[in-house]
Amino acid sequence: MRKCKVLLLGFIFLGFAQLASAQGDDPLPSWNEGDTKQSIIQFVEKVTNKDSADFVLPAERIATFDNDGCLWSEQPMYFQLFFAIDRVKALAPQHPEWKNKEPFASLLKGDVKAALAGGEKAILEIVMASHAGNTTEEFEQIVKDWVATAKHPTTKRHYTEMVYQPMLEVLNYLRANDFKTFIVSGGGIEFMRPWTEAVYGIPPEQVVGSSVKTKFEIRDGKPVIVRLPELSFMDDNVGKPVGINQHIGRRPIASFGNSDGDLQMHQWTTAGDGARFSLYVHHTDAEREWAYDRDSHIGKLDKGLDEAKKNGWTVMDMKKDWKVIYPYELK
Amino acid sequence: MRKCKVLLLGFIFLGFAQLASAQGDDPLPSWNEGDTKQSIIQFVEKVTNKDSADFVLPAERIATFDNDGCLWSEQPMYFQLFFAIDRVKALAPQHPEWKNKEPFASLLKGDVKAALAGGEKAILEIVMASHAGNTTEEFEQIVKDWVATAKHPTTKRHYTEMVYQPMLEVLNYLRANDFKTFIVSGGGIEFMRPWTEAVYGIPPEQVVGSSVKTKFEIRDGKPVIVRLPELSFMDDNVGKPVGINQHIGRRPIASFGNSDGDLQMHQWTTAGDGARFSLYVHHTDAEREWAYDRDSHIGKLDKGLDEAKKNGWTVMDMKKDWKVIYPYELK
Repeated sequence: MRKCKVLLLGFIFLGFAQLASAQGDDPLPSWNEGDTKQSIIQFVEKVTNKDSADFVLPAERIATFDNDGCLWSEQPMYFQLFFAIDRVKALAPQHPEWKNKEPFASLLKGDVKAALAGGEKAILEIVMASHAGNTTEEFEQIVKDWVATAKHPTTKRHYTEMVYQPMLEVLNYLRANDFKTFIVSGGGIEFMRPWTEAVYGIPPEQVVGSSVKTKFEIRDGKPVIVRLPELSFMDDNVGKPVGINQHIGRRPIASFGNSDGDLQMHQWTTAGDGARFSLYVHHTDAEREWAYDRDSHIGKLDKGLDEAKKNGWTVMDMKKDWKVIYPYELK
Repeated sequence: MRKCKVLLLGFIFLGFAQLASAQGDDPLPSWNEGDTKQSIIQFVEKVTNKDSADFVLPAERIATFDNDGCLWSEQPMYFQLFFAIDRVKALAPQHPEWKNKEPFASLLKGDVKAALAGGEKAILEIVMASHAGNTTEEFEQIVKDWVATAKHPTTKRHYTEMVYQPMLEVLNYLRANDFKTFIVSGGGIEFMRPWTEAVYGIPPEQVVGSSVKTKFEIRDGKPVIVRLPELSFMDDNVGKPVGINQHIGRRPIASFGNSDGDLQMHQWTTAGDGARFSLYVHHTDAEREWAYDRDSHIGKLDKGLDEAKKNGWTVMDMKKDWKVIYPYELK
């Protein structure tokens, strides 16, 4: 009995020691001290403090993150578009008709600008040609191979190296505080899932994104899921709260984005009862990353900036708030 | 330093004591000893044993469960249909035209059989009238109120009391072994989510089901998600692997169902590499529950029985395998 008590006390002591150590460490070492960093920490501390009026049960601690421009870079164009173009090139020998058909003809000649001149319709055609017609397993392998080999034109780094170190720290910090972290992105759900677990610690079942229609069938006695060249769901703008509701089924208490495409996600998140937190990553660093907002052709942040100010959401400033951008800068 | 070692040893000892105690307990006390129970335990033991060739990493331990007839009863008709009928009755004063319009007219006269004579079209009309036209928050509250008050016509119990005690034990047993448990049901995703966490320990984000289309909008300055009277996704038969792929993004290693509607989920699950487990709940107990299979109008299990035999899936026998059916029998 006495021995048990000693053991129990030891156990409690170890628990406290661990807690003290965790609290002593800076959970966001790549963030400069200031209001932005403090707004994140204060939010996490109040929703996890049992004595706080803002305490939130762990099961309700849902945090959603946009991907492009929020967790990894998105310039000079969405990384998924680089994938689509590489894929069109790889498939070209099977499609001789593409030589005389836009947007493929320009793309194959290396003139991306001309190919994309057709606007959304052209992009959709490229995406469907490059993202459908195979099984989910085949597509997963294609994405894995691309992620392992393709390099960004400017940095010459793998695309998955161009994730934001400070945001990785936010993801880890939230999870260490019993948050469940989700991606809610306009990007393709099956384009992200093959690598989000290794890169962000976010498992496939916590990835929400745009999708093509799929169909189950038995091929040569083996069940497969086939990717059809038809858009099923666009997880952007007004689609984000819909995607959140469909996949998660409860309202996030925190959301992170960087563009007007995240506006409705922030509105949906902050309209809930109790403590809420929404943050915009503001791309202000033309030297270390890119600088763009109200007039950008990609990741446009215009209405969102105004709404953030009006509603008291955190607008982070990349140049001012981040000590480093990419993890490889730490090495 | 010496003190630290003692504390550490104490900590390790406590860990082992806990482990031994957990293994000494029967994880499935409501299951009679026999092949069915052993097939579940053997599967879990081999995929969780690091020295086994069948070991599966915790992140990959995905188990999917049908709901109607697998986790709770589904006779004399799907419980969600009782909800729909109650809802039609509640809404009738706002719809005077229903008095002369089938299937509503028969339903309001209490003649459910005549109302459902219109087949799938009639059911869809009833479901849309009763499940759409409100916001997700309003619908959630309506479901919560119904679950708290409505009673089953035969047992006079709340519907959520008519869940299967032996299946609750399977859910707990799997989760204790680091499985993530999901519902994959033909039932409405937003009809299940308001109560699955309390009843099954399955959070909303792990519920996959059929759904209506939804739309985000700002109403009186407040963001809402509106439920539209249009089917978005039917999570049954060939829809189940599609729903699994869409929501979970990886293939389950174990699946549990009770009807031909679960056949494709079992096929998809067992076609993966490594150890796999699929089980059919076979309703064989006319006294304690219901007995039905090949000719049933609900939860028909015909082709599934043949496929289970052919593929070596476990077919559980309710009469033989379960000591109790419902949790309230234990009290």
